[in-house]
Amino acid sequence: MSVTINSSPTHWVLTLSCPDRPGIVHAVAGMLAELGGNITESKQFGDAETNLFFMRVQVLAEVSRERLTTAIEPLAREFQLNWNLDLVGRPMRTILMVSKAAHALNDLLFHQRASDLPIEVVAVVGNHTDLQELARFYGVPFRHIPVTAATKPQAEAELLALVEELDAELVVLARYMQVLSDNLCRALSGKVINIHHSFLPSFKGAKPYHQAHHRGVKLIGATSHYVTADLDEGPIIEQDIERVNHEMSAEQFVALGQDVERRVLSRAVRWHAEHRVLMNGDRTVVFR
Amino acid sequence: MSVTINSSPTHWVLTLSCPDRPGIVHAVAGMLAELGGNITESKQFGDAETNLFFMRVQVLAEVSRERLTTAIEPLAREFQLNWNLDLVGRPMRTILMVSKAAHALNDLLFHQRASDLPIEVVAVVGNHTDLQELARFYGVPFRHIPVTAATKPQAEAELLALVEELDAELVVLARYMQVLSDNLCRALSGKVINIHHSFLPSFKGAKPYHQAHHRGVKLIGATSHYVTADLDEGPIIEQDIERVNHEMSAEQFVALGQDVERRVLSRAVRWHAEHRVLMNGDRTVVFR
Amino acid sequence: MSVTINSSPTHWVLTLSCPDRPGIVHAVAGMLAELGGNITESKQFGDAETNLFFMRVQVLAEVSRERLTTAIEPLAREFQLNWNLDLVGRPMRTILMVSKAAHALNDLLFHQRASDLPIEVVAVVGNHTDLQELARFYGVPFRHIPVTAATKPQAEAELLALVEELDAELVVLARYMQVLSDNLCRALSGKVINIHHSFLPSFKGAKPYHQAHHRGVKLIGATSHYVTADLDEGPIIEQDIERVNHEMSAEQFVALGQDVERRVLSRAVRWHAEHRVLMNGDRTVVFR
Amino acid sequence: MSVTINSSPTHWVLTLSCPDRPGIVHAVAGMLAELGGNITESKQFGDAETNLFFMRVQVLAEVSRERLTTAIEPLAREFQLNWNLDLVGRPMRTILMVSKAAHALNDLLFHQRASDLPIEVVAVVGNHTDLQELARFYGVPFRHIPVTAATKPQAEAELLALVEELDAELVVLARYMQVLSDNLCRALSGKVINIHHSFLPSFKGAKPYHQAHHRGVKLIGATSHYVTADLDEGPIIEQDIERVNHEMSAEQFVALGQDVERRVLSRAVRWHAEHRVLMNGDRTVVFR
Repeated sequence: MSVTINSSPTHWVLTLSCPDRPGIVHAVAGMLAELGGNITESKQFGDAETNLFFMRVQVLAEVSRERLTTAIEPLAREFQLNWNLDLVGRPMRTILMVSKAAHALNDLLFHQRASDLPIEVVAVVGNHTDLQELARFYGVPFRHIPVTAATKPQAEAELLALVEELDAELVVLARYMQVLSDNLCRALSGKVINIHHSFLPSFKGAKPYHQAHHRGVKLIGATSHYVTADLDEGPIIEQDIERVNHEMSAEQFVALGQDVERRVLSRAVRWHAEHRVLMNGDRTVVFR
Repeated sequence: MSVTINSSPTHWVLTLSCPDRPGIVHAVAGMLAELGGNITESKQFGDAETNLFFMRVQVLAEVSRERLTTAIEPLAREFQLNWNLDLVGRPMRTILMVSKAAHALNDLLFHQRASDLPIEVVAVVGNHTDLQELARFYGVPFRHIPVTAATKPQAEAELLALVEELDAELVVLARYMQVLSDNLCRALSGKVINIHHSFLPSFKGAKPYHQAHHRGVKLIGATSHYVTADLDEGPIIEQDIERVNHEMSAEQFVALGQDVERRVLSRAVRWHAEHRVLMNGDRTVVFR
Repeated sequence: MSVTINSSPTHWVLTLSCPDRPGIVHAVAGMLAELGGNITESKQFGDAETNLFFMRVQVLAEVSRERLTTAIEPLAREFQLNWNLDLVGRPMRTILMVSKAAHALNDLLFHQRASDLPIEVVAVVGNHTDLQELARFYGVPFRHIPVTAATKPQAEAELLALVEELDAELVVLARYMQVLSDNLCRALSGKVINIHHSFLPSFKGAKPYHQAHHRGVKLIGATSHYVTADLDEGPIIEQDIERVNHEMSAEQFVALGQDVERRVLSRAVRWHAEHRVLMNGDRTVVFR
Repeated sequence: MSVTINSSPTHWVLTLSCPDRPGIVHAVAGMLAELGGNITESKQFGDAETNLFFMRVQVLAEVSRERLTTAIEPLAREFQLNWNLDLVGRPMRTILMVSKAAHALNDLLFHQRASDLPIEVVAVVGNHTDLQELARFYGVPFRHIPVTAATKPQAEAELLALVEELDAELVVLARYMQVLSDNLCRALSGKVINIHHSFLPSFKGAKPYHQAHHRGVKLIGATSHYVTADLDEGPIIEQDIERVNHEMSAEQFVALGQDVERRVLSRAVRWHAEHRVLMNGDRTVVFR
C-alpha cells in the first residue's frame, strides 16, 4: 500500500457496540480492507436478548489515527456505533488505590515491571502509608490520601484532581477498603475496577470470608467488577474460586483468598487494558 | 485372635463426635487395639471454635457388632460420644425423589449398577411419571406420588410411610421440584440430601440459572446440602462450579449446569453413604 | 428477500480454512450480506506460525444450499478455501464403538436422548456384547463385531461397510479397547474421535492410570483426540483433569477417571458435531 | 498439668513412618496422652501396597524437646519409626536458587514477609545477578555463584559450603536453570525442591512450553518435586494446570505458566516446611 520500503504497519485495536442488524461485519471489514489492513484477531457477539452487537478487531495497517478515524466515522453514524480506537499493547495509564493489604498491589506492580501487563502505573494512592515502600521499590510515586468520615469529600476531590492531572484512564481498587461516593462513581463511570473478596452475589458487604466460613461453604471466591454507585452490584468482569475444607479457619480463608483475589484482579485489569471488556447493560462481554 | 482358620476380619467404620478433650484418640485406638483391630484409615478433627471433636476410623477386626458395641459403650459414656458403627462398603438403603429432569437420577442409578457408589436404591419416587421408564431399566421400583397444594400433607405422609416400610436410611432429592414441609424436614432430619442448582448462598429460590444469567456471573455452580426447615440454608456438603461466558443464554446455563449438579450430588451421596460427613452445627465436617 | 410471508430463514454454519491474507473476512461477510444473511456467531483465527486462517460463521438467511454454495464457490477459488456448509443443530450421524466399559456410552446416549448433543447415534458397535442392553434401552441398534488378531482385517472391513451403509459421518471410540489399523485410520481420517484415559502425552499406551499411580502424580487426566495412524498422537481436541491423592489406589484412579473421560469425550463430540473443531496440521483450532 | 500459672503449652509436630502393624496409633496417642498432650491435628495413612504406615500429629503439651524425645525413643525402637519432631510454625531455614526469572522468587519472598509461609530465607543464590535487587528489597542476602561447565564442581562445592555455613534445611530451585550433579543430589537428598514447568511426566527436559505448544495440548501445567539424580523423575509433591487455547503462542504459554509455577511451588514449599510431606518410596504422602 505504501511505497516507503522500511515502514512497518501499525497494530490497531478497534472495539465497538451498536444495535444489531445485518451488514456490520461486512462494513467494518470492508472499511479495513480498503485501508489495506490485515486483521490479526477479530471477535464478534450479537446478544439476542438485548439486540446489541459487539465487536473487537485487531488490524495491522499502515495508516494514521486520523485516516482511520475518518474512515470509521461514516460507519459510526450509519450503525450508531459506540466505538474506541487504540494501539495494541499501549500501556494504559493507571492509578492503583490501596489500604494495607499488599498482595494485589505487589502482583500488579510485579507484572507491570515484567512488561506482561499493558498498564503504566502512574501513581499508587493509599489511605494508609503501609505500602509506600513497596511502591517505591517499583519506582512508582506514592500519594497518601487519608480518609475519614469528615474528610471524605475532600479526599475524593483530591483523587479526582489526581486522575485529571495524571491523565489516568483506569483506577484499580486493589483491596482499597473505602467505599467510593455515588458522585465519584458517576464521575469515573466505566473506569474503576474493584476486586471483591467473595463469589458475588454471595457475601456482599463486610468480612465476606468470615461470612463464608460461618455458612460452611466448600469453595471461596473472588469477583472483579466495574464500580457503580450500587455497591457490589457493578458489571462482573471475572470470577474464580478456591476449594476450602472444614479444617480451615476464617483466617485461613482470608490467606487462601488472597491468591484468588490476585489472579482475578490481574486478569480483569489485563482484559480491560487490552480493550477486551465491553459493557452490555449491567453485564460485560469479555472477548478473551 | 481367632483360632478358626478360614475366618477373615470384618471391615468396620466407626464415626463419632464429642466435646473435645485430651485422650479421645488414645482411648478409641486402645479399645480397637485390644480387640485386635488393624486401623486402615483414620481421620480426626478438633474444631477450636465449637470445641467439638470429630473422628472417622476404619478398622479390620475379627469381632462381632455386639462385641464392638460393648467395647464402645463405656467410652461413649466417658466422652459423651455421638457415635455410629457400620460395615465399610455396605450399601445404604436410599430413596431417590425426582420430578421430570433425568440427569441426576440417571447418574445415581448408573453408578449404583456399576457398584461404585455404596447405595441400594430401594425406590424412585416421582411427583410425575416421566422417569418411570428409566427407573425400570435399572430394575428399581418406581412410585408415583403426585403433589398439589391440596394433597401435599397426604403425599408427604405417603412418602414417610414408604421410608419406614422400605427401611430407607437416606432420601435424595435428585432435582425434586417440591419444597418439603417443616414437619417432614424434622422427621427426616440429617437423612435428606438435596442438590441446589446454584452456588449457595447465591441465587436462592426459583430459577437460579436465570438469576445468575441476569446478574452476568462468570461461573455457575451447584450445592449439595442437607435439607432443613430453613429452605436452601441446610449444612453444605459439597459445591462445584463451571465457567460460563457472555455468549451463553440462560438456557445454556441450565444445560451446562446439569453436569455440575450431577457431579456434586454424586459426591455428596457417596461421602454420606461412606459415613464421611459429620454434622458440626450448621456446617459439615467432610472426611474425604 | 422472499415474498412468502410465513417463511423463516435457515440457520447455516459455514467453516473454512485457507492461507491467510487480507480481505477474507470482508469477502465472506460481503457474500453473506448480499444474500441478506444475518450473522449470529462468527469467530476467526489467523495462525501466525502456519500462516493459515480459520473461520466459523453462523448465519440466518432465507437461502437454499444451492444458492449459498454457488455464492461460496468463487471465494473458494480465490482464497483456496477448504470449506464446509451445514445446518446449525443438524444431528451428525454417529457410530459409537464400545467394549465393556459403559460410562462413556451411557453419557453420550443420555445426552442424545435429552436432545442437548447434536448427534444421531445410528449404531453402537461392540467387540463384546456387554453393552447391548444399554443400547437397546436408548433405542439404538447394537452390532456385535468381535475382534481377534486373526479376524481383525475382516472386522474392520465390516465396520467400514457399516459406516458406508449407515452413511455415518462420525465414529466415536467410547472406550473401545482395540487399536485401529493404519488403513482404517486413513480411510476414516478426521472422522474418528477417541478418548484416551490419560493426560497425553503422559502415559501413552496400556493401563495409563496404573502408570500414573506408579509415578505418584497428583492429577489424573483424559484426552480426546482425532485418531491417526500414529497411536495416541492424533490432534488433541480437549483435555481435563481431576485431583488425586496418596490415599487412592490405581483402581480408584480408574473409577475417578471415568468421570473425566466422560466429560472430555462429551465436549469433544459436541464441538465436532457443531463444526467448532478445525484441523491445523497436527493441532486443532476449537471455536468454543 | 503444670502448676506454673503463666506457662503455656508448646505446639509440637511429630511425623513418622514405619512398617505397618496394629497398635501404632494407640501407642503414639498413649505416649502423648501420658505427657498431658492435647492433639490438635492428626492424620494417618497406611499404604496397602508398600505396607508402610505414615503419621503426622500436632500436639499441645507443656513438655521439653528432651522429655518428648525420651518418650518417643522406645516407640521408635519397637515400631522401627523413621521420625521427626519440630515446633509447629517454626520457619525452616531456606536457600532459594534462581537464575533470571523473577516470578517464583518474588512470590516466595513476598509470602515470607507476609509471615504466611513458614520459611526463613537465609540466602538467595543466583548464577546470574539479575535478581540481586529483588532479594535486597526483601532484606535477604544475595550470593552470586556463576556456573559454567568448567566451574560447576567448584560452584556446587561453594553451594554445599553455604548450606552448611547457614545451617540451611531446605534448598528451593525457584526456576534455577542448572541441573544439579548426582553428587549434590545425593548430598542434599530430600532437601531440594524443584519446580518443573510442565505437567510431568509430559515434556521432560528443555523448553517444555514449546513442546506443549507444538503438541497442541489444551492444558499446560507445572510440577513441584524433590530433586533426585534421575532428572525430572523425583517424587512429585504437587501439580496444577491452566487452560490454554489455539490462539496462544508458545510465548503466551510461558507467560501464563508462570502463575501456575508460582502457585505449585509455593504450595510444595509450604507443605514441606509444615512437615506435611513424607516420602513413600518414589512417591509422596501429602497430609494437606
